[in-house]
Amino acid sequence: MSDPETDTVRNGVDTATLFATLDAVNAQRELAKFQFRVRNQWVGGTHNRSSFSDFSGAGGEHEHVETYTADADHPNVLVGNDNGPTGAEYVLHALAACLTHGIANIAAARKVNLTEVTSTVTGDVDLQGIFGMSDEVRNGYSNIRVSFDIKGDADDETLREIVEQSRSRSAVFDVVTNGVPVDVNVATA
Amino acid sequence: MSDPETDTVRNGVDTATLFATLDAVNAQRELAKFQFRVRNQWVGGTHNRSSFSDFSGAGGEHEHVETYTADADHPNVLVGNDNGPTGAEYVLHALAACLTHGIANIAAARKVNLTEVTSTVTGDVDLQGIFGMSDEVRNGYSNIRVSFDIKGDADDETLREIVEQSRSRSAVFDVVTNGVPVDVNVATA
Repeated sequence: MSDPETDTVRNGVDTATLFATLDAVNAQRELAKFQFRVRNQWVGGTHNRSSFSDFSGAGGEHEHVETYTADADHPNVLVGNDNGPTGAEYVLHALAACLTHGIANIAAARKVNLTEVTSTVTGDVDLQGIFGMSDEVRNGYSNIRVSFDIKGDADDETLREIVEQSRSRSAVFDVVTNGVPVDVNVATA
Repeated sequence: MSDPETDTVRNGVDTATLFATLDAVNAQRELAKFQFRVRNQWVGGTHNRSSFSDFSGAGGEHEHVETYTADADHPNVLVGNDNGPTGAEYVLHALAACLTHGIANIAAARKVNLTEVTSTVTGDVDLQGIFGMSDEVRNGYSNIRVSFDIKGDADDETLREIVEQSRSRSAVFDVVTNGVPVDVNVATA
């Protein structure tokens, strides 16, 4: 898909396929409906593992090239065995990943060749919330900061516009800043 | 840490250490301040990779036992090369992971022995939002559903209460349902 010899591939993004996909969805809006899924299994202690195998969208069911897995655990200082990052750390990864997905696509669409995109994401949290020690402290992060370093064959203003467009069209940025209704159901039998 | 022969270990959670940790934080609330961090690097196309190495909390700096990494990419149907789940899928994993961290700890504290905790998390998203095709469609998930199967040596009501307490004290559930302020900074030099 990413043949650097062709005109349409930039930053590893096949812009011809990208624009054709957008045209197809624009002509048939039902194709835009997606459902993503994970399945999680408790391993022991605070250690658990999610698998990512399938999703629906573009009018059909799809499987990932392989079933991906991600382990999560609490670190030792939070009484876990540190078999992976915490769920809270994966939120920061999800945000960095989604913004960077968008930056690559948007830069390619604007014919900007990127040479480097790195980011650091930090989140501050006061655990008095989850420990139930204060009603005035929330459970989650009080704030999150994302710091991008981006380089490419465009001027400073254009590179900043690419990041801004990605931010303004990011699924995860929207979820993390605006929230989503979440239903939790339980079966015990 | 998880010696099944001792009284204090249940579900792989060392409850003596858990309660001692809560007591220490309760006596010195500054210990509750944590900062989690990820560093993300663009690999090519929509493929990028985060690393999880260090965080601060409990009055000091900490390193994970090893530096964990997570790859993210768009699937083929979204013009990526499917080198990993999307950022949006990692949000669902973060939520399942955080709720399951809490279930293990809370069950252990309540002296409930768990035998199985699995969950499926689904999120519905209409990509007309991120594609900029409709101002009335949000970028992120319209809704998320979490379905737990939980089994252990407690009655139905107790098992449901454990899930509910985890939900009510989950950092990621709070972030995903209520949102967090996010600052995005860009350096181009």
